[in-house]
Amino acid sequence: MLIVKKFGGTSVANKERILNVAKRCIEDYKKGHEVVVVLSAMGKKTDELIEQARDINPNPQKRELDMLLTVGEQTSVALMAMAIDSLGVPAVSLNAFQVAMHTTSAYGNARLKRIDTERIRNELDAKRIVIITGFQGIDKQDNYATLGRGGSDTTAVALAAALKADSCEIYTDVDGVYTADPRFVKNARKLNEITYDEMLDLASLGAGVLHNRSVEMAKKYGVQLVVRSSLNTSEGTVVKEETRMEEMLVSGVAGDKNTARISVIGLQDNPGVTFKLFQHLANHNINVDIILQSVAREGTKDVSFTVAEDAVEDALEVIKRHKNTSLACDYIEVETAVAKVSVVGAGMMSNPGVAAKMFEALYDIGVTIKMIATSEIRITVLIDEAYTEQAIKAVHDKFMLGEA
Amino acid sequence: MLIVKKFGGTSVANKERILNVAKRCIEDYKKGHEVVVVLSAMGKKTDELIEQARDINPNPQKRELDMLLTVGEQTSVALMAMAIDSLGVPAVSLNAFQVAMHTTSAYGNARLKRIDTERIRNELDAKRIVIITGFQGIDKQDNYATLGRGGSDTTAVALAAALKADSCEIYTDVDGVYTADPRFVKNARKLNEITYDEMLDLASLGAGVLHNRSVEMAKKYGVQLVVRSSLNTSEGTVVKEETRMEEMLVSGVAGDKNTARISVIGLQDNPGVTFKLFQHLANHNINVDIILQSVAREGTKDVSFTVAEDAVEDALEVIKRHKNTSLACDYIEVETAVAKVSVVGAGMMSNPGVAAKMFEALYDIGVTIKMIATSEIRITVLIDEAYTEQAIKAVHDKFMLGEA
Repeated sequence: MLIVKKFGGTSVANKERILNVAKRCIEDYKKGHEVVVVLSAMGKKTDELIEQARDINPNPQKRELDMLLTVGEQTSVALMAMAIDSLGVPAVSLNAFQVAMHTTSAYGNARLKRIDTERIRNELDAKRIVIITGFQGIDKQDNYATLGRGGSDTTAVALAAALKADSCEIYTDVDGVYTADPRFVKNARKLNEITYDEMLDLASLGAGVLHNRSVEMAKKYGVQLVVRSSLNTSEGTVVKEETRMEEMLVSGVAGDKNTARISVIGLQDNPGVTFKLFQHLANHNINVDIILQSVAREGTKDVSFTVAEDAVEDALEVIKRHKNTSLACDYIEVETAVAKVSVVGAGMMSNPGVAAKMFEALYDIGVTIKMIATSEIRITVLIDEAYTEQAIKAVHDKFMLGEA
Repeated sequence: MLIVKKFGGTSVANKERILNVAKRCIEDYKKGHEVVVVLSAMGKKTDELIEQARDINPNPQKRELDMLLTVGEQTSVALMAMAIDSLGVPAVSLNAFQVAMHTTSAYGNARLKRIDTERIRNELDAKRIVIITGFQGIDKQDNYATLGRGGSDTTAVALAAALKADSCEIYTDVDGVYTADPRFVKNARKLNEITYDEMLDLASLGAGVLHNRSVEMAKKYGVQLVVRSSLNTSEGTVVKEETRMEEMLVSGVAGDKNTARISVIGLQDNPGVTFKLFQHLANHNINVDIILQSVAREGTKDVSFTVAEDAVEDALEVIKRHKNTSLACDYIEVETAVAKVSVVGAGMMSNPGVAAKMFEALYDIGVTIKMIATSEIRITVLIDEAYTEQAIKAVHDKFMLGEA
């Protein structure tokens, strides 16, 4: 078997944890498996580097920030190779150049384009454990480009796809995917299996375990994901295509406070104005989530949408730049003290009334719904941030997701 | 003019110093010069990384240690690009991959083979200050390989040669080359000019300002070197081919405590035995300095040589490995409490009696000479390490090198 194992920053934060991860990798190696390890930067290293950069230049060039950040993962992989070697197993570390991990040039938020597997294959054939830097790639001009949030997960899945790995294990500090965040919801239950689509919605809605980009890629290439804990050996949650025999109505509830609502009020209703608004935002790599558009009246309309909080500044700049031309409007409102709460479940598709049940749960505790978005397998509402945990608990209870 | 400027670890040890270096680079840029900057890792970063590695694996794979160490210079160059940008001048940082800085695979002690200049040329043409990682290269298999001691100086000179730079400025914490180490010899005098050969001998003998590899390369490619201080704007010392009008007998005195004597006693005098001894050492990248061979007696001979202290262990291992075959001997002696003291000067060639004068100075203060090595422009003696400073002072005074 070829297994790709991804460990996050907490799992390699110090010497003891690095040696712990080394031992886990060696266990699989000694069973005769081929092992590829993907690592993030140690602990808070990435944040420290960003701070160091901003101390010198409050607004560092994105290309240079990526040049700086990539040292984080390179440090992790080199130390891991030394740790594995110290335990008597041959290992080699590779960075984005050495693998040839090709990305776009969107520094800080690049997309993977192609991974060369020749070097990795050669190292595996030489019976080495291969340790690869997550989060980073190189663009056409040989500049480093980092993948943004959840980047290391994406690297792991992409490698698993490129290498046709039998399994891609994502190690975190929780031991699987839960029906709700166990830190807030005491009776949350661990799921043994979940479909890509459910995981996708949970990921994009702030469940925090896996980033949606990595799940999307896993779904696209049919990579079987396993979410496991680096601290214990429990089985974790398998993310795959097939649905379970007994379909649950709802698989989980998730909350996401890292969201803000931007409202463009009195937008001149010229042809294609909404299209232009979101195209401008897309051109600047700003991901828009829930969109709400009022019915046009008197030649204008109001458009609201949510973005991640750290994208607010960029989004406002983009809109203001076009305010006098294609995006003429009266004013812009921003609200950051909001949160998304979502229920996700493949069972929803054939069960009307899920939305009503969720709204009822929120109504019971007196929480006002500011925006609503639905898909076939999820319902998301935007509420006041202060009520996030309370709302998650109420919805979780309403759907009776807790352990028996 | 195209100027290559190299700054060592102390010059970029913190934010203030990085900004100070940035300003100096910008001064030249604003005069219309093309500026290429070569940097070492910040302060004690390289030592810290080595310590971090040894904490995990007391004997880390050399390939992986180089993978780890290269993050030091990459951090420096990215931060410098941000610093220069913050002062309003466009800058770009490049590592060994991005430049394509080709080396041998002797990890930890690699040799530069070839530098591609296309990317650097393009960046200079785009009116950017180009900041390049010193000390590191990539081998044929795309592995990082570091250049060993003095590596960043070597990178700077090699870049100056490849780019046909008008000048290569090496910035240190002293403001030039002195007749002796000014920390020990109070009346030591700064030299305005020195020849490559003199500098070469001073460098290899522990003057500490420039590494001999960089001077060798500068001589080979006719690169004009300037040794300057990063802390003040004094003129520094120019290292070049031409000799001065008025030749001094001796240019300087240098001491080097980082040396050890290894004596191979009772070596079987088979044909080519000395050749084999030093070939084995060379194969393991161990640099041998002074060599002393006794006259053969009764079919055996004694061979003594000096190496840098950190090479002692490797050297002993190499000799022991061949002790039962090509290097049969009675026993091996190691002495580490020794130091080299040398006088250097192109004037020596035509002045007999320099050696006698040096030996007299040492005799006057009662220092025993353990080994002697001479070339046309230098005389080196090996003495007890405890007398190093005293010996330098005595020799410096004897040749009246001090300021008037």
